[in-house]
Amino acid sequence: MQNDLVAALDIGGTKIAGALVDGEGRLLVRAQRPTPAREDGETVMGAVETVLGDLAADPRWAEVTAVGIGSAGPVDASAGTVRPVNVPGWRDYPLVDRVRATTGDLPVTLVGDGVAMTAAEHWQGAARGHANALCMVVSTGVGGGLVLNNRLHPGPTGNAGHIGHISVDLDGDPCPCGARGCVERIASGPNIARRALEGGWRPAADGDATAAAVARAARAGDPVALASFARAAQALAAGIAATATLVEIEIAVIGGGVASAGEVLFGPLRRALREYATLSFVGGLEVAPAQTGADAGLIGAAAAVWSASSAGIERTEVRTA
Amino acid sequence: MQNDLVAALDIGGTKIAGALVDGEGRLLVRAQRPTPAREDGETVMGAVETVLGDLAADPRWAEVTAVGIGSAGPVDASAGTVRPVNVPGWRDYPLVDRVRATTGDLPVTLVGDGVAMTAAEHWQGAARGHANALCMVVSTGVGGGLVLNNRLHPGPTGNAGHIGHISVDLDGDPCPCGARGCVERIASGPNIARRALEGGWRPAADGDATAAAVARAARAGDPVALASFARAAQALAAGIAATATLVEIEIAVIGGGVASAGEVLFGPLRRALREYATLSFVGGLEVAPAQTGADAGLIGAAAAVWSASSAGIERTEVRTA
Repeated sequence: MQNDLVAALDIGGTKIAGALVDGEGRLLVRAQRPTPAREDGETVMGAVETVLGDLAADPRWAEVTAVGIGSAGPVDASAGTVRPVNVPGWRDYPLVDRVRATTGDLPVTLVGDGVAMTAAEHWQGAARGHANALCMVVSTGVGGGLVLNNRLHPGPTGNAGHIGHISVDLDGDPCPCGARGCVERIASGPNIARRALEGGWRPAADGDATAAAVARAARAGDPVALASFARAAQALAAGIAATATLVEIEIAVIGGGVASAGEVLFGPLRRALREYATLSFVGGLEVAPAQTGADAGLIGAAAAVWSASSAGIERTEVRTA
Repeated sequence: MQNDLVAALDIGGTKIAGALVDGEGRLLVRAQRPTPAREDGETVMGAVETVLGDLAADPRWAEVTAVGIGSAGPVDASAGTVRPVNVPGWRDYPLVDRVRATTGDLPVTLVGDGVAMTAAEHWQGAARGHANALCMVVSTGVGGGLVLNNRLHPGPTGNAGHIGHISVDLDGDPCPCGARGCVERIASGPNIARRALEGGWRPAADGDATAAAVARAARAGDPVALASFARAAQALAAGIAATATLVEIEIAVIGGGVASAGEVLFGPLRRALREYATLSFVGGLEVAPAQTGADAGLIGAAAAVWSASSAGIERTEVRTA
């Protein structure tokens, strides 16, 4: 691909990671700081600037032509602002302008973290070669992104593919987002654990009450644990089928901690998909685990830069006067 | 727009309409036949050929450079075939090849009827000027189509935007498509009428038990009729909100017989949208009635030709060797 380098940032509620990424998707230089998520906005920005400073200390910084940011959402790529749920100090925070000011007016591309992971999976992972794909992260939350017509589809604000907050159970449990029966409210790791506990499952002696522990119990045949994963799979299947029916995708790629449960999740998910993806044009839909792992956010932030510049995607690259 | 003419076909379970459409969207010549929907496939094709023959008898046929077809679905634009639910004689029927053979090898663009209506609304109707839109027909069934990045998004097979068959109630009533709780299963005209009858509503002396009669009762204050429309509105809102959350749309345009109920539908729909479209980036979503009316299918079939040729949309124009 390109010979130039991108400075990539992956901004989450726990850590702020950075890297210089080359046209092959290699991470040449890395930097990282914990996110001071409970501090004021300027303190959080200070951590971002420290990460950028660490990257800029490398001589290869001179080859950097753009900055790509994947951030916890919601983001607003059209305004260049972010308001991550888990970073209360940033509310419509002008992240793009601030990063431009720090980097000598390099062009900055901002997308949500689900869109960044999708860019990574389409470039280097399980969605490679697919013209139309949904990529998802199923973890503490449920996020995602879309590839349509062989291009990243961030949408005008960089949030498209936000499958965690579509309702698949319109009379269902209230979701923190304000709606009811969202995919995340049923399928996220904490909700898998909550449902297992409510059904009578109890943690082992180690006290681990996470979805990973529920997955271990399910693999051992615990019926309550199996049922909790099956319900999560059903909600994911309804959401994936809805996406396929709306935009025509060939493959759904699933990463994140819950996906590491493996067949405990993917088995019932594939069965449930056959129940919800019924129309002829979605019958061939595949499901696959993600491949890009912990660096997906950084690789994807770089890929989003190149995707935006080659596709001319509107307004995802914000240049202020 | 263009100076050339398109021969447009709108193929439904009741009638086969045709027109020569100019670059302003004017219908210069019209032709129509009833669909012999219960006959064999060749008899149905004979009706299509008769419509095309009527159009070709006009001297302006010489200016026709392409054929656009909007057909009841599912269609398969990549294969050039159709299998309309209500035309059992056509099962993976090679409509594109047959129309090409009839028209002297003119290029043929095939899309589903929901996609055609969307093309019409984006060109001449309520979605004009919007870069990202969902257009829907709520009638005996519920169909739709998408405009993304200012272009029609038919998807590889020409069926994208098929919102009637996304599940918004994953444990809900079985839908004829095989899934459960689909938008159509809750919000179509026949389901609005069924639900009102089940709730105790009774037709007036004229015996009219359609959704239009339920709408009249709702406007007169009948609580059961109002509740049936409110439930339909809730399902439509969940589906529209899901679409906005997945692909970022600015407007949802609704046409079809059920939409003619007016505020009985649109009032509760706008209220329900506030409950389901909760994320910041979908907060500005508008809802509007469709404007293109009975000619939407013909205007849209022509618009789909020009959209496909200008956008280079993959595989929607099928040319066989």
